[in-house]
Amino acid sequence: MNELYRPVGAFYKEDTCHFVVWAPKKESVELVVTHPYQKIYPLQKDDAGYWQATVENVTPGLRYLYRIDGEMQRPDPASLSQPEGVHKASEVIDHNFSWTDDSWKGIPLEDLIIYELHTGTFTQNHNFEGIINKMDYLVELGINAIEIMPIAQFPGSRNWGYDGVYPYAVQNSYGGVNGLKRLVNAAHTKGIAIILDVVYNHLGPEGGYQSDYAPYYTQRHKTPWGNALNFDDAYSDGVRNYFLQNALMWLDKFHIDALRMDAVHAIVDYGAKHFVQLLKEEVAKLEKKTGRKKFLIAELDLNNPRYINPQSKSGYGLDSQWIDEFHHAIHAVLTGETDGYYEDFGSLQQVEKAFTDTYVYDGIYSPHRKKIFGAPVGNNDYGKFVVFSQNHDHIGNRALGDRLTQTLSFEALKLAAALVIFSPYIPLLFMGEEYGEKNPFFYFTSHSDPDLVNAVTEGRKKEFSYFSFKYDFPGPQEEDTYRQSVLSWNINGNEHAAMFRFYKAIIQLRKTLIALQNKERDSMKVYPVNDNKVLTIERKNGEESAFIIFNFNEEKKDYTLPAETSCNKIFDSSAAQWNGPGEVTPLTINV
Amino acid sequence: MNELYRPVGAFYKEDTCHFVVWAPKKESVELVVTHPYQKIYPLQKDDAGYWQATVENVTPGLRYLYRIDGEMQRPDPASLSQPEGVHKASEVIDHNFSWTDDSWKGIPLEDLIIYELHTGTFTQNHNFEGIINKMDYLVELGINAIEIMPIAQFPGSRNWGYDGVYPYAVQNSYGGVNGLKRLVNAAHTKGIAIILDVVYNHLGPEGGYQSDYAPYYTQRHKTPWGNALNFDDAYSDGVRNYFLQNALMWLDKFHIDALRMDAVHAIVDYGAKHFVQLLKEEVAKLEKKTGRKKFLIAELDLNNPRYINPQSKSGYGLDSQWIDEFHHAIHAVLTGETDGYYEDFGSLQQVEKAFTDTYVYDGIYSPHRKKIFGAPVGNNDYGKFVVFSQNHDHIGNRALGDRLTQTLSFEALKLAAALVIFSPYIPLLFMGEEYGEKNPFFYFTSHSDPDLVNAVTEGRKKEFSYFSFKYDFPGPQEEDTYRQSVLSWNINGNEHAAMFRFYKAIIQLRKTLIALQNKERDSMKVYPVNDNKVLTIERKNGEESAFIIFNFNEEKKDYTLPAETSCNKIFDSSAAQWNGPGEVTPLTINV
Repeated sequence: MNELYRPVGAFYKEDTCHFVVWAPKKESVELVVTHPYQKIYPLQKDDAGYWQATVENVTPGLRYLYRIDGEMQRPDPASLSQPEGVHKASEVIDHNFSWTDDSWKGIPLEDLIIYELHTGTFTQNHNFEGIINKMDYLVELGINAIEIMPIAQFPGSRNWGYDGVYPYAVQNSYGGVNGLKRLVNAAHTKGIAIILDVVYNHLGPEGGYQSDYAPYYTQRHKTPWGNALNFDDAYSDGVRNYFLQNALMWLDKFHIDALRMDAVHAIVDYGAKHFVQLLKEEVAKLEKKTGRKKFLIAELDLNNPRYINPQSKSGYGLDSQWIDEFHHAIHAVLTGETDGYYEDFGSLQQVEKAFTDTYVYDGIYSPHRKKIFGAPVGNNDYGKFVVFSQNHDHIGNRALGDRLTQTLSFEALKLAAALVIFSPYIPLLFMGEEYGEKNPFFYFTSHSDPDLVNAVTEGRKKEFSYFSFKYDFPGPQEEDTYRQSVLSWNINGNEHAAMFRFYKAIIQLRKTLIALQNKERDSMKVYPVNDNKVLTIERKNGEESAFIIFNFNEEKKDYTLPAETSCNKIFDSSAAQWNGPGEVTPLTINV
Repeated sequence: MNELYRPVGAFYKEDTCHFVVWAPKKESVELVVTHPYQKIYPLQKDDAGYWQATVENVTPGLRYLYRIDGEMQRPDPASLSQPEGVHKASEVIDHNFSWTDDSWKGIPLEDLIIYELHTGTFTQNHNFEGIINKMDYLVELGINAIEIMPIAQFPGSRNWGYDGVYPYAVQNSYGGVNGLKRLVNAAHTKGIAIILDVVYNHLGPEGGYQSDYAPYYTQRHKTPWGNALNFDDAYSDGVRNYFLQNALMWLDKFHIDALRMDAVHAIVDYGAKHFVQLLKEEVAKLEKKTGRKKFLIAELDLNNPRYINPQSKSGYGLDSQWIDEFHHAIHAVLTGETDGYYEDFGSLQQVEKAFTDTYVYDGIYSPHRKKIFGAPVGNNDYGKFVVFSQNHDHIGNRALGDRLTQTLSFEALKLAAALVIFSPYIPLLFMGEEYGEKNPFFYFTSHSDPDLVNAVTEGRKKEFSYFSFKYDFPGPQEEDTYRQSVLSWNINGNEHAAMFRFYKAIIQLRKTLIALQNKERDSMKVYPVNDNKVLTIERKNGEESAFIIFNFNEEKKDYTLPAETSCNKIFDSSAAQWNGPGEVTPLTINV
C-alpha cells in the first residue's frame, strides 16, 4: 500500500468532516454544501491526485456536491448516502452505531448454507426491516448465511442492484446505512452471517458520474457493459483503490462477513498483480485485525482455478467460487431444456462430472461458447464452491421469470434440492425456493431516462432471442413486473408446507450427519451413472459413510447399493411425510 | 490437442498436394489454381470448420487462391510463399531440403550470445545470402546465435518485418523458404543457433486477408494495432492453432532453434490456458521428438513473472524474456535523456536494481505509465533474461534512428558493451554495434496503399511527440530511408577496429572466465552505488570470483575493491589496446 491507496469519501467525526475525492487530472475541485446551509469550500490536491478538505461544525445529514474545474457539480462517487437518488446531492453519514454482535466470530466457509434474497422483493416491506422480521423463519429453516443482492444506490427504487452507481451508498429506499447495519447486527445475534453481493465489474447506465472525475474506464478491454472499468491502464490505481476501499468498508464498518463478487471474469486486469489478489491480501489483514472470518466469493465464468488457488501456489487466493455449471447440469437434465447455454448440458454424465470434478468444461470444447473452455479445478476442496439449483440469474434471466416450480413435478423439485444440499459444496437457496414459491422473479428496473428504458427492453428481447421463448414478456420498467416478483409467503398450503419441512430436514441432515462433514476432494466417491439413470454418491468422513441415491427416472427403479457392508436407510424423499407417493419411488433421493 | 488443432496450409509430397484452410462460418471454399494451369477444385468442410482437398499431379510452384462463398478470391492465410507479394496468388512449396546439420544439438539457453540483425539492411545483398556471407565474421566476433528480425511476408521489400501478414510465408525478396533453410543450415554447421522473431500479437495493416476467412479478431481487447487477435473469444481455437502450428513449423521444418516472440503482452488471452502456455507445452513435445533444444523467448512489457515461471509453479513456462528495463536504465544514465519512457529512469540505483532484481518496476509506481507496475521477478535465474544496450526498437524508434555512437564517447560505448556482456544475463548485440557502426537504423516501409503510407507517417510523428524531437525525420516510405539504414561495414578505421577487438575480447572473457559461468540468482553480489558513481558487481562460481567495476564518471576515480582477498586485474577497457586513454581512467570498466 502507498499513498495511492487510502479511504475516499466523507469521514465524519465529532462535528468535523474530512472530504477526500480522487480527480488526478482536474485543475480544481470544490466542495459545494447545499444543505443545511450553502457554502463553497476549496479542496487541496496532493501528488497522488486526491483532493481534500476538512470542514468544521458539520452535522450528519449535511448535503454536498463537488464542483469540478469550476463547471459541473456532481455527487460524491464515494457517497455513503443519496437521500434524493442518484442525480442529487450526497449526504454526510455518521458511522457511529450501537453494535451488539461483539460475540460474533463468523462461520467457517465450508459450513455455510446460504440463502440468497433480494431486499426489495423478499417482503412487502421492500426493505431491510422486512428481512429482520423474517430472521426467526430463516433460523428455523436452518440456513446460516443470508446473501443480499446488491444494495449500492441505483436509479429509482426497483432494481436487482446490478445497475448500482454509488458503490459506497446504501440504497435509500431499502433503509440506508443504518438500515443495513441493523440487519447485519440482527443476523449476527441470531447466528446468521451476511454475504453482500458487490459489483466491481461495471457501474450502472444511469446516474454514475465517475468519468467526470477521473479515468474510471479504459478502452483496452470490453465487457458486456461496454468499455471496461480501468483496472490495468494509466491511472488504474485510483480505480483499484476505489473498489478496494469499498470492499474493506463493507467488511469493517458494516460487519459484513463475506462479499459475493459479481462477474469477476469481467474485472479485466492484465497487470502483474490482479485486482482480486490485491483485494484478498488487504482483506486478510482486516481479518487479522477484526478477529472475524471474512470471505471473498467470486462469481466467475472462466473455469480458471488460478482465482481460487492459494497465493502460495501463485493463485489469487479467493476463498470461494460460484459454480454455475452445477446448476446448468442439473437444470438441463431435470427440465430437458436445450436452449441458450443449456445446449452445453443435458446429460447425466455432466451431473456426475459436476460432482466429481466441479468444472464440467475443464479444457474441452464448448459448443455454446464455440471454443475450448476452462482448465481442471486441481486440488481445491469441494468446500470452496457454491452451488444451487436456482438463483436470481437463472430464474430472473428467463423471459417469464419462472421458477422450477412451474416446470418440475413436486418429486423432481425435491430431487433438485437434495442434489444441492447433499453435495459436498456450499449450498445456496434462492428466496422462496424452500417452500416452493410459485411467483416469478422477473428482471425489473426503475430508470428515469426514457431512452435507457427502451434500450433495456430491447436488450432483454435480444438476450432472449438466444432462447426459444416465443411469447411476450413483462417490461422491466413496469411497476407490476416488480410487484409480481415479490414473494407470496404462501407457505401454509399442503405442498408448500411439505416442501418447507423437506428443506428443513435435509438441511438438518447436512449439518448433523458426520459423513457429510468432510469436504476434502477425496471424501466423495461418485459411482458412474449408467442406463438406469441413477446417480449414487458416497460421502465419507473417517469411519462414517453415507450413500446418497439420486433417481432421475420418472418411474420406480430397482437398485442395488454398491456397498459391501450393510447400510441403514435413514431418509427417503418420496416418503409420505414429505408429501411423496410412498417410499422408494421414482424421482427420489434416498439417504 | 484435438481435431481443432492441426497443421494448416498446402502440404506437398510426391506430386500430391493436400490443402487445408480454416473457415468455420463459410458456406463454400474452393481451391482456384491459377498457374501453371487454371482449374477450380471443391473443398470439403469438417465439423471443426476446416476445409480440405487433395489434388494429384501437382508440381511445386503451383499457384493458387481460395474462393470464399463463391465471391472473393484470396491467397492462403497459411501460404508458405507469395512470389508476387501479399496481394497475389500463393505458391505450393516442396519442404524437401538437403540438411547437413545432423550433428547440431543446439546451445543451452544461458550460454547464448545473441546478435540481432535485420536481413534487408544487414548487407548490400539485402537477403539471407548476405548473412551467410558474413558467417565467418560472426564466428570471429564470438557470438553463437543470430536473431533474425521477422521475415514473414510483408508488403513490398522494405520493412522491419512487424507488418508481416503471412506468418507462414518467408519474405520472397529475402530468398524465400529455401533461402532461409540455407541460412539455418549454414549457421548450424558453424555452431551458430538461429532465433527467429515472430509476431503473434497482430498482423500488418496491408495484405492480410485472414478476416475474410474467419473471426481472427475479437472486439474484447484492444492492442496498439486495434482490435486484438482472437485468442480467447468464440472461434479462438482456430486462431490459436494458426499461430501454434506456425511456431512448430519454424522449429521443426526450418530447424529454427528459438523463437523471439514479439510483444507477448499484446497477445491478450483471458482464457484458462494462456496461448503461450499451450505453445510451450507443444514445443516441449517437439524438443523431445527432435532431440534439439528449442526455446521460447518473450518480449514482454508486463514485468509479470508468471510468463517465465515454470509450469510446476503455475507459470506459463516460457524459457526466457527480454528485459527492456536494463536497456532503459543504462541508456538514461549514459545519455542523460529523460524523454518518453526514459522519464522512468535516470538513476544509477536503477542500473543497480536492474542487475540485482532484473525488474526495475516490480510493484512500484511508474510515472510514465501512471500506475503501479510489475511484480518481483522471484527465483528465476539470471540466465533466463535477455539484455542489450541497443536493439532495433531503441534505435529505430528514435526519430533520427541514431545509434549510441552518435551520442556517447568511445569510452562510454565500451562501458555500455561491458555492462551487457559482463552481466549474468543473456547478452544481445544489435548488428553493427560491435564495430561502432555510425549509420542510423530508421523505421522503413514499402506499403502500396497511399492512405496507409500517410497514416504511418502521421503515426510516427505522433509517437515522437512523446519525445522532444524537434526536427523533421525521414519518411518511412522513402527508399533512401532504407538505404541509409544498411550497415556501412566500415570496420577498418582505427576506432571501428578497436571496438571490434574490444567486443571480441569481452565476449571471449564471458565465455571462458569461470566466475562468469554461474547464472543462478545468488551468484552475483551487487555493491551499492554511492556518490562516487562506481558500480561494482561480484560474480561468483564455486571458489572463483570476479569483480567488475563500472566507472560512470567522466573522470578518473580512485577506488578500493570491496574484497578481503587479493585480486588480479585481468582486463581494463581504458587500456591503449582498446584505443583507450590509458589504464584505469574515467568511464572505464575493469575486470
